[in-house]
Amino acid sequence: MAQEASILETFPNPHPHRAYIIEHIVHEFTSLCPMTGQPDFARIRLAYIAGERCVELKSLKLYLQQYRSRGIFYEDVTNVILTDLVAACSPRWMRVRTRWTVRGGIHSVIVAEHGSREGG
Amino acid sequence: MAQEASILETFPNPHPHRAYIIEHIVHEFTSLCPMTGQPDFARIRLAYIAGERCVELKSLKLYLQQYRSRGIFYEDVTNVILTDLVAACSPRWMRVRTRWTVRGGIHSVIVAEHGSREGG
Amino acid sequence: MAQEASILETFPNPHPHRAYIIEHIVHEFTSLCPMTGQPDFARIRLAYIAGERCVELKSLKLYLQQYRSRGIFYEDVTNVILTDLVAACSPRWMRVRTRWTVRGGIHSVIVAEHGSREGG
Amino acid sequence: MAQEASILETFPNPHPHRAYIIEHIVHEFTSLCPMTGQPDFARIRLAYIAGERCVELKSLKLYLQQYRSRGIFYEDVTNVILTDLVAACSPRWMRVRTRWTVRGGIHSVIVAEHGSREGG
Amino acid sequence: MAQEASILETFPNPHPHRAYIIEHIVHEFTSLCPMTGQPDFARIRLAYIAGERCVELKSLKLYLQQYRSRGIFYEDVTNVILTDLVAACSPRWMRVRTRWTVRGGIHSVIVAEHGSREGG
Amino acid sequence: MAQEASILETFPNPHPHRAYIIEHIVHEFTSLCPMTGQPDFARIRLAYIAGERCVELKSLKLYLQQYRSRGIFYEDVTNVILTDLVAACSPRWMRVRTRWTVRGGIHSVIVAEHGSREGG
Amino acid sequence: MAQEASILETFPNPHPHRAYIIEHIVHEFTSLCPMTGQPDFARIRLAYIAGERCVELKSLKLYLQQYRSRGIFYEDVTNVILTDLVAACSPRWMRVRTRWTVRGGIHSVIVAEHGSREGG
Amino acid sequence: MAQEASILETFPNPHPHRAYIIEHIVHEFTSLCPMTGQPDFARIRLAYIAGERCVELKSLKLYLQQYRSRGIFYEDVTNVILTDLVAACSPRWMRVRTRWTVRGGIHSVIVAEHGSREGG
Amino acid sequence: MAQEASILETFPNPHPHRAYIIEHIVHEFTSLCPMTGQPDFARIRLAYIAGERCVELKSLKLYLQQYRSRGIFYEDVTNVILTDLVAACSPRWMRVRTRWTVRGGIHSVIVAEHGSREGG
Amino acid sequence: MAQEASILETFPNPHPHRAYIIEHIVHEFTSLCPMTGQPDFARIRLAYIAGERCVELKSLKLYLQQYRSRGIFYEDVTNVILTDLVAACSPRWMRVRTRWTVRGGIHSVIVAEHGSREGG
Repeated sequence: MAQEASILETFPNPHPHRAYIIEHIVHEFTSLCPMTGQPDFARIRLAYIAGERCVELKSLKLYLQQYRSRGIFYEDVTNVILTDLVAACSPRWMRVRTRWTVRGGIHSVIVAEHGSREGG
Repeated sequence: MAQEASILETFPNPHPHRAYIIEHIVHEFTSLCPMTGQPDFARIRLAYIAGERCVELKSLKLYLQQYRSRGIFYEDVTNVILTDLVAACSPRWMRVRTRWTVRGGIHSVIVAEHGSREGG
Repeated sequence: MAQEASILETFPNPHPHRAYIIEHIVHEFTSLCPMTGQPDFARIRLAYIAGERCVELKSLKLYLQQYRSRGIFYEDVTNVILTDLVAACSPRWMRVRTRWTVRGGIHSVIVAEHGSREGG
Repeated sequence: MAQEASILETFPNPHPHRAYIIEHIVHEFTSLCPMTGQPDFARIRLAYIAGERCVELKSLKLYLQQYRSRGIFYEDVTNVILTDLVAACSPRWMRVRTRWTVRGGIHSVIVAEHGSREGG
Repeated sequence: MAQEASILETFPNPHPHRAYIIEHIVHEFTSLCPMTGQPDFARIRLAYIAGERCVELKSLKLYLQQYRSRGIFYEDVTNVILTDLVAACSPRWMRVRTRWTVRGGIHSVIVAEHGSREGG
Repeated sequence: MAQEASILETFPNPHPHRAYIIEHIVHEFTSLCPMTGQPDFARIRLAYIAGERCVELKSLKLYLQQYRSRGIFYEDVTNVILTDLVAACSPRWMRVRTRWTVRGGIHSVIVAEHGSREGG
Repeated sequence: MAQEASILETFPNPHPHRAYIIEHIVHEFTSLCPMTGQPDFARIRLAYIAGERCVELKSLKLYLQQYRSRGIFYEDVTNVILTDLVAACSPRWMRVRTRWTVRGGIHSVIVAEHGSREGG
Repeated sequence: MAQEASILETFPNPHPHRAYIIEHIVHEFTSLCPMTGQPDFARIRLAYIAGERCVELKSLKLYLQQYRSRGIFYEDVTNVILTDLVAACSPRWMRVRTRWTVRGGIHSVIVAEHGSREGG
Repeated sequence: MAQEASILETFPNPHPHRAYIIEHIVHEFTSLCPMTGQPDFARIRLAYIAGERCVELKSLKLYLQQYRSRGIFYEDVTNVILTDLVAACSPRWMRVRTRWTVRGGIHSVIVAEHGSREGG
Repeated sequence: MAQEASILETFPNPHPHRAYIIEHIVHEFTSLCPMTGQPDFARIRLAYIAGERCVELKSLKLYLQQYRSRGIFYEDVTNVILTDLVAACSPRWMRVRTRWTVRGGIHSVIVAEHGSREGG
């Protein structure tokens, strides 16, 4: 996974002393189902309180585009994205939420979180 | 009930050390009214924090399709689904919410929960 | 009031050991204004955690239809419905919410509650 | 029917030389099902191009309230209201649209029209 | 097909001299896919101008419930329903529109029509 | 009426050779009921194809504010506004649509038109 | 201010022993800007838990209509309404929320509260 | 292009004598920008009146998935899809509408049509 | 105006023999009021049937950004954009629709059209 | 930054003893991307509990318009606005939330807060 995550870039948090929330909502995520090879589509909501560094937006887009031709399960990809982003920018708190389009009359939502929004 | 529930399959939780939330929203549930034999329709929202195992999505669909020709009350079916799913995957926490279509100018919502979302 | 409330029927709670929530949303309630005799219209949202018994849905509909020709104020009817239903099924917790259509550019919402949702 | 319709009042069209459209949307109509005696609820949309006289709004409200305790079918009541209003104000054109709440998973809409919107 | 259609009942059009529109919107239709045996779900919008007879609403509901355990394609069922209803009530004009839930990221709408809405 | 209408200002149509459409949607109109003195509220949609001159927007606002303390019926005010604006700017075509807030469970819409949108 | 507030009437709380919530949503409030004299428009949401007395709805409407020709700032009018209503009915808890229409691309919301919703 | 289009399958129109409308709405289309190689996303609405044959739904899905790794402009892909589908099933009438997600604050819609919806 | 319009680029229509519709919806247009110098904001909807050439999307964005520091009236800018685009790509038909944000409780929509959508 | 912030004006809080909430929602904010010089657009939601002084609305509008020709990052501008406003009016609590339009399929939301909403 190191390969894909290395594309992520960061920049210094311009206001590191204030615990403010940054949210990026990705409307155009797609990956492949590891069982059938069929495309999956999701909307991803990433929220975090930065530590010393923020995630650079264009590199985030390119990082997520790498999943376009990769087979991976809903539960797994949600956690992998969280782990990669935490490794890249060491946030005080971070949450990743993926919402997948309908399959067989069911749509799924996965939410994974790192650290605590409230505190130190 | 064992008969229907045995169709449920599970797979190992890929990230068992993180208490993340998995939600499946079922748009196409239908069962029968045990009094009149008339069809009932519901939207089911299943949310849980997995323990060692996750619910496999296709088996969940097939499990719920079994109610298509079964007479059962709103309050009962909500609790039975919760009990069956808890038995199948031993989650840390699980909640089942059913929202039924209008009958006689009234629509109903039932919410049953197992364990605590916060802890343990 | 006893007269109207006696129409309410109940059935045994199929899962009395679990504190789950039952909600019935009534789209077609109408009563009369006690001052002018003009019709009033409301949407009623009834939520409760059952004790030993649940409210039977058809009798609930008939009970509420009795207000069609009865003059009663917003604040009063909300509380009377709550009192009647609590008497009929002894819930652990119950809440009645009425939302009235616009009169003179104002619409009103009344919410009355019995017991505590959390405990005991 | 004469009895109910006689309550309708009219006033002189203040601009009889212009073929403008008047629409009244009634949110609170209720009648009874002639088979079961159960209440029915509808939203009524009345549109017309007046001739010499316009329908007075308060009398329209009182006229429609008379259906509150009357058993009548969807198709019938839509046409009867149209016939009564045409008789009362002789419009150039008139249309009555009723939209009924859900019964048995089905809701109905009836639209009846008198004269032509376009011309003379 | 005769077997299923025979359940349809009609009643005399109460206003046969006026070409008004009757619409029934069915929220709870379900049939089976003839290839996979999996359930399909649709919303059906039936509109017509009656001739001498109208479709009775409860028999329409029961007629449509017969598709619950029948395998039939989208295009076919839309046309069969239209043909059966035309045979049952000989309308001046009739249209059947079916809107199916998502399958494989695609949802479908089929619209079939009999006669002309405009004329005689 | 001359008094109120004289406040309307116009400016030369910057593109008089093209029959384009100008629409102003007024969210904050209020007048008084001539029977009860109670305030009425409406949303007004004014559309027109200009001739040699366009309606100046600020003067339109001030013109409409004059109705704040004036008693006038729905049907009348719609036509009076149309007549005043036509007199002020001689449009090729103009339409005034007023949509009033709910009174006694009914809301009203009035639409009056001057000239033809299509031609000449 | 006493002058305007004296118009407010109250009636005995029909269920004084239960801490239920009463909410009135006013869709048609208008006042004047004290700087420019231009009309302001707001939607007001009043919520309270009554003590011994409730606010009478028609007098509330008339009380609020008095602001139609009065110049007053957003922040001020929100607090003055709260103060007047608290004086009139001595509620256990009361909250006034005003939401103003757009001015210069900005719309404003003011929320003032008296007492505590939870206790006492 | 022949290569991709050959994947399209058809089946005999079950009701070839009736000119009914079939519509497939594709929620999950993605292709690549031929200039930048960046992913594009669209919602495609395909409507047609079949001749002798209908488009098979699964093969339509697979046909459209082929654009996932192909660089092509908005205007071009809309017309190519139309041409390929017309060649595959010889419809009486067909229309393809693509709606693309926002790029640089602009989103685009392209609509191409073959034959006439009205006639022979 | 020549100066600003020269930034517009075009490319050959890939399917010139088909009269298909291209629509670009611009969410982020801003200009200045020529009277007050205050910023105006609009959403622009451009639709056209191309002749030999199509408008290049990025140059369209840059062309529209030039209005950011230019004072111009609603009616004027709508027509100027239409004229510039017609000059740049000689479409069979073109329409420009601008929808402006609220000023003084009024929002405006201007629609200008070149050529005929129907024909040659 | 002092230069821009000096334009902010304040007025005395008319009800300084009550901790009420003031919210201004700005629909028309635009700045420039410091990397590309391209325009950015945001909706800003400012909420605060005033101390001795309130922010004057017109000066707030002019203050925010200064960003129209200034290059600044999302995270930075959100914090700078908060800092400037806190300096101008010394609120008990203040929060600034910016919501940016889509760039590359991603839209962003930044929320920064000063002081505590709850207490003293």
